[in-house]
Amino acid sequence: MKNIKEYMQGVGQAARAAAYQLVKATTNDKNNALEFIAIALEDQFDFVLAENEKDMLEGRSSGLDAALLDRLALNEARLHSMIDGIRQVAALNDPVGEITDLKYRPSGIQVGKMRVPLGVVGIIYESRPNVTADAAALCLKSGNAAILRGGSEALNSNKAIAQCINQGLVKAGLPEAAIQVIDTIDRAAVGELITMPEYVDVIVPRGGKGLIARVSQEASVPVIKHLHGICHVYIDDEADRSKALAIAFNAKTHRYGTCNTMETLLVAQAVASDILPELAAQYQTEGVELRGCSITRDIVSDVKVATDEDWQAEYLAPILSIRVVKGLDEAIDHIQQYSSQHTESIVTENYTTARRFLREVDSSSVMVNASTRFADGYEYGLGAEIGISTDKFHVRGPVGLEGLTSQKFIVLGDGQVRE
Amino acid sequence: MKNIKEYMQGVGQAARAAAYQLVKATTNDKNNALEFIAIALEDQFDFVLAENEKDMLEGRSSGLDAALLDRLALNEARLHSMIDGIRQVAALNDPVGEITDLKYRPSGIQVGKMRVPLGVVGIIYESRPNVTADAAALCLKSGNAAILRGGSEALNSNKAIAQCINQGLVKAGLPEAAIQVIDTIDRAAVGELITMPEYVDVIVPRGGKGLIARVSQEASVPVIKHLHGICHVYIDDEADRSKALAIAFNAKTHRYGTCNTMETLLVAQAVASDILPELAAQYQTEGVELRGCSITRDIVSDVKVATDEDWQAEYLAPILSIRVVKGLDEAIDHIQQYSSQHTESIVTENYTTARRFLREVDSSSVMVNASTRFADGYEYGLGAEIGISTDKFHVRGPVGLEGLTSQKFIVLGDGQVRE
Repeated sequence: MKNIKEYMQGVGQAARAAAYQLVKATTNDKNNALEFIAIALEDQFDFVLAENEKDMLEGRSSGLDAALLDRLALNEARLHSMIDGIRQVAALNDPVGEITDLKYRPSGIQVGKMRVPLGVVGIIYESRPNVTADAAALCLKSGNAAILRGGSEALNSNKAIAQCINQGLVKAGLPEAAIQVIDTIDRAAVGELITMPEYVDVIVPRGGKGLIARVSQEASVPVIKHLHGICHVYIDDEADRSKALAIAFNAKTHRYGTCNTMETLLVAQAVASDILPELAAQYQTEGVELRGCSITRDIVSDVKVATDEDWQAEYLAPILSIRVVKGLDEAIDHIQQYSSQHTESIVTENYTTARRFLREVDSSSVMVNASTRFADGYEYGLGAEIGISTDKFHVRGPVGLEGLTSQKFIVLGDGQVRE
Repeated sequence: MKNIKEYMQGVGQAARAAAYQLVKATTNDKNNALEFIAIALEDQFDFVLAENEKDMLEGRSSGLDAALLDRLALNEARLHSMIDGIRQVAALNDPVGEITDLKYRPSGIQVGKMRVPLGVVGIIYESRPNVTADAAALCLKSGNAAILRGGSEALNSNKAIAQCINQGLVKAGLPEAAIQVIDTIDRAAVGELITMPEYVDVIVPRGGKGLIARVSQEASVPVIKHLHGICHVYIDDEADRSKALAIAFNAKTHRYGTCNTMETLLVAQAVASDILPELAAQYQTEGVELRGCSITRDIVSDVKVATDEDWQAEYLAPILSIRVVKGLDEAIDHIQQYSSQHTESIVTENYTTARRFLREVDSSSVMVNASTRFADGYEYGLGAEIGISTDKFHVRGPVGLEGLTSQKFIVLGDGQVRE
């Protein structure tokens, strides 16, 4: 095996050089490249599936579990959907070059902002071949060069997809190194990728918490990351009863494994005995295990004791913790203490209560009378999502193309000088 | 001396708690606090000056150089200007809570963004007492708690100013710990401050390159930083002659020590022999030392040889390097290779050339027909400036109040659930 440090330095240099070239790429150049990539994937449809089958065979023989194998698997439908995804990104507005806030200043200069790519984006993800195409498309459309490091179990699939991507780039006259897929399974490659600030401007880890925690701890470049999703719904004493039932039910049961699923329900004391029995019955019909505070357990039967660990838990499972609170202040205090600052929703008809919740709850998405399940780039109209940021720096919440860009100042003058 | 780690952990905890309180502070609360701080500084005007005099005495006896002593010194005029600065920040619009882009989605939810404070800001600066008041005001107005660590030579001055700040905060009903000034000269305090991600959300180092480089290398929290200012002016072959002369002269000679001062002049070959002799004479009258490429030296006498080191130099002095280039492409290539990505300006009357320069030059400020000296938060209308960022992540260019904030998503619904 080649020397990993040298190999990654070469990848980094090529990415930086490609990023300089991409600055000159027009919207048309980028869209053409995306279309050519889609066509290359269609042309080599069977080859990509065959390479994926190699990964699947190895995965089965090395004993990968069913969930991992499912994420690794491509089939005709999935490959078609991957290709459609690339064309959807091509159809999005180009964020690069957008000029905003251009205003005249007393000196006579006109000052505004122009949106620019971040430069080189490193994406680290698990063995999901569709991420290779998806991440490549988002980085390219936002004018960034990308270095993609997928899970080793998907190496053959990723190399096949990378081949199609490179063909598309070249056909559109863009540098091949605009999208590079790391073709070594040596884990040291990740260590190098996240510590090359001279070549990499931002790292986006996509995958499990272990991966994300390790990457963000060891990276010397900025990381756009998502850690936990401990989301709350608070049913206020002035909630509309039917909205409360619908939202609390949907936020928990629509999907259990997603980061925007409600994990803790807070209910105002004044309405708890009215709402909780009906809601609990609905949950129990769905097979959701309930864990509650003592008041909850007085109101509803078959509820286990919720401990402090429950308030801190991201179950990602049909389990819900329930706490009865005095009112808004106690709900906000609970959220402040236990929330992962991902998504919280209040159900209320009271204007002032809604306004306070929106202002005082410090999470990446704060909602009134809507299910937490809406916290999603597509639902928000971003058109695509590279991830969800639970940080505040640079970008917060669902991250679309804009999150992969920055803004520079532009100044238009007519010969002005400083007095 | 107390245990520094314990002390800084205490400061961090108090700042985090204060930041939670500040989220509830109204615009009026914050403006009142700023006004009360200004009044406290007026009431204790002589005390602050006397404490500064202690620092000056110690500074003189320990042999601080004249430039450092000048930055350390407060006098009546400077203290008045410091107090005015606080009132100017109070007069700025409150960025916190600003809601933008609120749009209806097909699902019926309304999605928008609300601007929120970053949380806790750590400011590390040299022995300039005015920064204490300035940074405190900007952090407070943007709803952030601040931990201020000034140079040890200014400790008495900073403690006196901090006392006034704390009085103002308390009088306005805001937590005293919203602004904390580190009252130890132990350098280990900086090491702690930049490695407490649980309590500190961002670090802003203000000072010399050594300080900034050290802080950004060792910090485990995000840093808003400014490193070098190697700024270029390119005089295009279609430049207006009088604009070119005025801008190139102003960008170099308006002030020598500032980061937005031009350090390298690029001139298109076609106009070099017309423009350079007159411009060089103006520079030489001002005492600016010229260093040039061979073509420059053929055209102008008394020009030293510019080496590769000159193209990389931030002189911050009456020295200018000059290079004659074939045209736009070579100018952009030179800038790409040598610029610190701070500020570059083109002088041209050609629409397409201007448009290409704006798009392709990747610097925090890119200008057409204006002096690089305009790259400044006040000139840009930001109202105030906490620094200039030469990074792309989070914020780029002059950083005003908005740079100390983030945006969360807000969702307004009417009972919507995910289908």
